[in-house]
Amino acid sequence: MAMSLMLQETRRQPETLTRILEHGLQDTSALKTRFQAGRPRFIVIAARGTSDNAAQFGRYLIEITTGIPVSLAAPSIITLYGGAGVSACQPNLRETLVVGISQSGESTDTNAVLSHARAHGAITVGITNESKSALAQAAEFTLLVRAGKEESVAATKTYTGQLMVLYLLAAALGGSVDPDHLRVVPEWVESILRREEQIAAAVERYRFLTGAVTVGRGLNYANALEFALKLKETSYVLAEGFSAADLMHGPIALIERGFPVFIFAPPGPTWPSISSVLDRCAELKADTLVVGEVGPSTGHRVSSTHRLIELPPQPGLRAALPDLYTPIPYIVPAQLFAAHLAEIKGLDPDRPRTLTKITRTL
Amino acid sequence: MAMSLMLQETRRQPETLTRILEHGLQDTSALKTRFQAGRPRFIVIAARGTSDNAAQFGRYLIEITTGIPVSLAAPSIITLYGGAGVSACQPNLRETLVVGISQSGESTDTNAVLSHARAHGAITVGITNESKSALAQAAEFTLLVRAGKEESVAATKTYTGQLMVLYLLAAALGGSVDPDHLRVVPEWVESILRREEQIAAAVERYRFLTGAVTVGRGLNYANALEFALKLKETSYVLAEGFSAADLMHGPIALIERGFPVFIFAPPGPTWPSISSVLDRCAELKADTLVVGEVGPSTGHRVSSTHRLIELPPQPGLRAALPDLYTPIPYIVPAQLFAAHLAEIKGLDPDRPRTLTKITRTL
Repeated sequence: MAMSLMLQETRRQPETLTRILEHGLQDTSALKTRFQAGRPRFIVIAARGTSDNAAQFGRYLIEITTGIPVSLAAPSIITLYGGAGVSACQPNLRETLVVGISQSGESTDTNAVLSHARAHGAITVGITNESKSALAQAAEFTLLVRAGKEESVAATKTYTGQLMVLYLLAAALGGSVDPDHLRVVPEWVESILRREEQIAAAVERYRFLTGAVTVGRGLNYANALEFALKLKETSYVLAEGFSAADLMHGPIALIERGFPVFIFAPPGPTWPSISSVLDRCAELKADTLVVGEVGPSTGHRVSSTHRLIELPPQPGLRAALPDLYTPIPYIVPAQLFAAHLAEIKGLDPDRPRTLTKITRTL
Repeated sequence: MAMSLMLQETRRQPETLTRILEHGLQDTSALKTRFQAGRPRFIVIAARGTSDNAAQFGRYLIEITTGIPVSLAAPSIITLYGGAGVSACQPNLRETLVVGISQSGESTDTNAVLSHARAHGAITVGITNESKSALAQAAEFTLLVRAGKEESVAATKTYTGQLMVLYLLAAALGGSVDPDHLRVVPEWVESILRREEQIAAAVERYRFLTGAVTVGRGLNYANALEFALKLKETSYVLAEGFSAADLMHGPIALIERGFPVFIFAPPGPTWPSISSVLDRCAELKADTLVVGEVGPSTGHRVSSTHRLIELPPQPGLRAALPDLYTPIPYIVPAQLFAAHLAEIKGLDPDRPRTLTKITRTL
């Protein structure tokens, strides 16, 4: 089988990330000026599919670094219920920032949310890969993902690209984002990609996987959702993503001996929560695979009952990269896993059944 | 087997709903006065598990009826990342309403979000079944669910009770909620409960169900999540809930011939979106079960390839009850389905493996 577009695009992520950082200051300068004149008090992010997982990351990143409350839009309130048409009240979107995220920029409901918000006084930003798209035209400000055309139906480089753009947005909002830390990310992704062969070999035993849960917490919760979506789209695995806390409130009942659980376990503030899930999974004798950094560098250990995809050492830093910068590197092994699982199952990850690249929904 | 507590509590829902309506005006009068003095501009709802599904409903209800943007809290931002501690910015929660929802009122992270918000200037409301709980003490205002003690681990009467309380909250916020329509709800639920035997008979063929997707849209999206959670908790079915739009953005790839899909299909603004999912499922030859009202009363039809749990006629109304009031009645057949499926599988829905009634997470 020829190498899938999904794999080709997964490998091309370092260039996209570097390109975004190179253009970053210039791309966000107008926005920064606008925010200095008046910082938004509330933020709404609208997106679908993989972009909605990026939005979920953006929600955590922005709330953590700026303290501004962020909501993920429910587009049907505009597209089906007619906005606040049911009531007599007009929405007051003064001091509100509404961000639309879409690879193609042609997601009809995301664009409807953005246009509605702009008409009601919100500041609007479109994050898209396509500079001439409807989203770029509808938004007051556009931040380009600069990933080059994405050909695979399963999005990879635009997901990590959207995450990188969201760091720039958080910085423009006055959030404490360190450019020196961001600059390490593309190189770390590069060194993770060099482990593709090892990851592909680890995927072999999942040939007959049909269902699973994926788990993350905080900034890596979005990665749990994104990994689950990739498993569904490319390998038809019934995989659901959970935050470590939500898993404990009910869905943990699913987990029995041998049940497959994939866990993102970076060092940092979420470790105690993730670690308690790891312990519970070990007690239940689940079949767990951990994406993490363990051993002397972090002082974290995982029980030998868990399988491990260990990330390579972070490049060129004396101190460990804070958890804030882990989501882009951590999704990469999961993208490689999903692409190789599809191939091992004899499927074409570039052409999932019943899917097309651009989905338009009411 | 003795009748499960879950079934007993499911049957007791009309009394709880009636009780909430009887106390409604009095319970919300102080809150109403407060909102008249200053209407919140932004709302955050914090909850876990079933209460989080109620929160999801509340988010749609409040945005639709009041136009105020609503966000569902990500508690880890407070409990693990230390609020806006990473940045120098203190959150500005003036004009913000923060609502905590918890059956027991003892959900540690929900309470942490509420206390943090109150300390930063937000108006706080606790929605709980327990008047002496930590949540009731932490919140400035408390709205009681008045469901009586909930004994089953799988929540039923507190879910519908929480939904009813959320209508009262929307009304207190100035939202267009019609008390005459609300008063019809307990009676309609009563008549749905009288169909338990037919629903139990329909469940028989799902004895070996291990995975499924559940689908809703708009106000009934929360029911899709809640039905999926009930299937996971009580019957260990790997069921994931989707909005009809999100399903089309990737997860539709899961659906093949014979794949089980459960769909909430009320008449109203979401019908075109739901109807397009029904058509797609018919093309794919999925095994679908629709909860809905079809036939002459609504003018809607579903293809004979779909199985149907038809709701009984709405009581005592000339015109159809608007979609706004369907979520409570529509979840009832799903609760009965889940409770009977557990029994048919030989499981005890009151004691799901590895779960306890009160879950405390970081």
